[in-house]
Amino acid sequence: MFFEKVAVIGVGLIGGSFGMALKAAGRCKHVVGCGRSDANLGSALQRGAIDSVATDAAAAVRGADLVLVAAPVAQFEKIFLAIQPVLPPDCLVMDAGSTKRDVVAAARAGLGAKLSGFVPAHPIAGAEKSGAEAAQADLFKGRKVVLTPLPENSPGSIQVAREAWQALGAEVSTMPAEEHDAVFAAVSHLPHLLAYALVSDIAARPNAAQLFGYAAGGFRDFTRIASSHPEMWRDICVANGDQLLKELENFSGEIQKIKMLLQNRDAESLEKLFDDARGARARWLNGEYR
Amino acid sequence: MFFEKVAVIGVGLIGGSFGMALKAAGRCKHVVGCGRSDANLGSALQRGAIDSVATDAAAAVRGADLVLVAAPVAQFEKIFLAIQPVLPPDCLVMDAGSTKRDVVAAARAGLGAKLSGFVPAHPIAGAEKSGAEAAQADLFKGRKVVLTPLPENSPGSIQVAREAWQALGAEVSTMPAEEHDAVFAAVSHLPHLLAYALVSDIAARPNAAQLFGYAAGGFRDFTRIASSHPEMWRDICVANGDQLLKELENFSGEIQKIKMLLQNRDAESLEKLFDDARGARARWLNGEYR
Repeated sequence: MFFEKVAVIGVGLIGGSFGMALKAAGRCKHVVGCGRSDANLGSALQRGAIDSVATDAAAAVRGADLVLVAAPVAQFEKIFLAIQPVLPPDCLVMDAGSTKRDVVAAARAGLGAKLSGFVPAHPIAGAEKSGAEAAQADLFKGRKVVLTPLPENSPGSIQVAREAWQALGAEVSTMPAEEHDAVFAAVSHLPHLLAYALVSDIAARPNAAQLFGYAAGGFRDFTRIASSHPEMWRDICVANGDQLLKELENFSGEIQKIKMLLQNRDAESLEKLFDDARGARARWLNGEYR
Repeated sequence: MFFEKVAVIGVGLIGGSFGMALKAAGRCKHVVGCGRSDANLGSALQRGAIDSVATDAAAAVRGADLVLVAAPVAQFEKIFLAIQPVLPPDCLVMDAGSTKRDVVAAARAGLGAKLSGFVPAHPIAGAEKSGAEAAQADLFKGRKVVLTPLPENSPGSIQVAREAWQALGAEVSTMPAEEHDAVFAAVSHLPHLLAYALVSDIAARPNAAQLFGYAAGGFRDFTRIASSHPEMWRDICVANGDQLLKELENFSGEIQKIKMLLQNRDAESLEKLFDDARGARARWLNGEYR
């Protein structure tokens, strides 16, 4: 597996790392990038994440044999419509979106006859840092990548998609887009919303300075994901709104249960809840849930 | 400031680190410890956190000039009652509890005429690791310690308490116990409850293995505090139940607001919320809220 020309549309943390990692693995000849910020593209060039800059997405994908769309998901349909006419017929197209149902819908709306070459992908490699400045060649090493293949995909295109991520050190699995969005609403999107909500609430209080002044390591780690990219998370929330609403509804119920325990001063049940959580987390860290 | 005999009641992460740190700073001659677990006391001895083991709290404080009560807060009244008869009149007593109103009440109930020597203290140095095994001499370096002095305290005893923590590298401030409990309900106790709630909820689902299987770095950091000591956090929740109920009520309101934004697909307000949170967190990390 070797790609002559890789086009990265949106050269941020994920897109930039993808270019760097493919080059470090010796799996491609040339990476062209495009994006909205000249400063960011300059940084991507300078750091070796891309070899050249294209003026727009259509120019970038001309003659490419691999395309990664790594822009915020709300832009996908526009990007697919723009590249569809010039996309080489055998080109593999992937994305790196954190949601999948909306990406599939955008691809169906935008890629037309080229849809069969699009294999939706989600590398689980986010970070609170963003931009090409944060890109690194080993970002995908040991990380999971979820593919949500389409019925239209040929087994061959799915296989090349799988091998491309594996070449970067990732562990690849597949599931339906619906299942993907439900899983990540629970273990990723919900915690992001809770962290954003806590920081924004504290910041809005009259004694915010005092409160932040006494916030320590627990708060810092709990809220790390509240430093994530606002536009990206806006798009994730809109795209996965129905699943997130279910998760928020469910979590409100959990809070109600804990309020009851506190009102009843039910020390035993509180300790059991904490003990169960600590045990489950230890099993998770120990790899028992994989 | 030099202590001849320091008694540490409850030689866990905080108590063990206190003994280690005082010795490392050359501020004491002998540290005696007592606690409920022989294995833990053995580890504390072996690691140099304490120099000897006392059979019980009363035996430990006999002849001491400094006592640190670092057991879970629910045990404090019993401990105060036990040590009160044998406590030397000039001995400084401090605690390391994460809540303060209940600790003050326990001291008033248990210390009788010795109350004036008790300066309530909260070192902000928790971790998800517990026990003497996790103790370290530099745990308090650069950390904050909040004192909530009593009207009965002499200025001298408050000053010695302040200097003792400063000698370990901590930054000491004072505030009323009521204010302390409100502040820490918001920036510490609430996030702990939310993290415990999320892990316990995920663990209870039929597809827990799949969900944990795709949980990544964001989830790991968000839930780090869900590995905290269950008994300690049970006691904190019971002791600070009224403030925690207020915080949970308020946070439920925040969740309701976000649900509205999702229902309305209000992308602009979501992005603003995330952007505000990210900005506030950046200012906090930058030290602008101190």
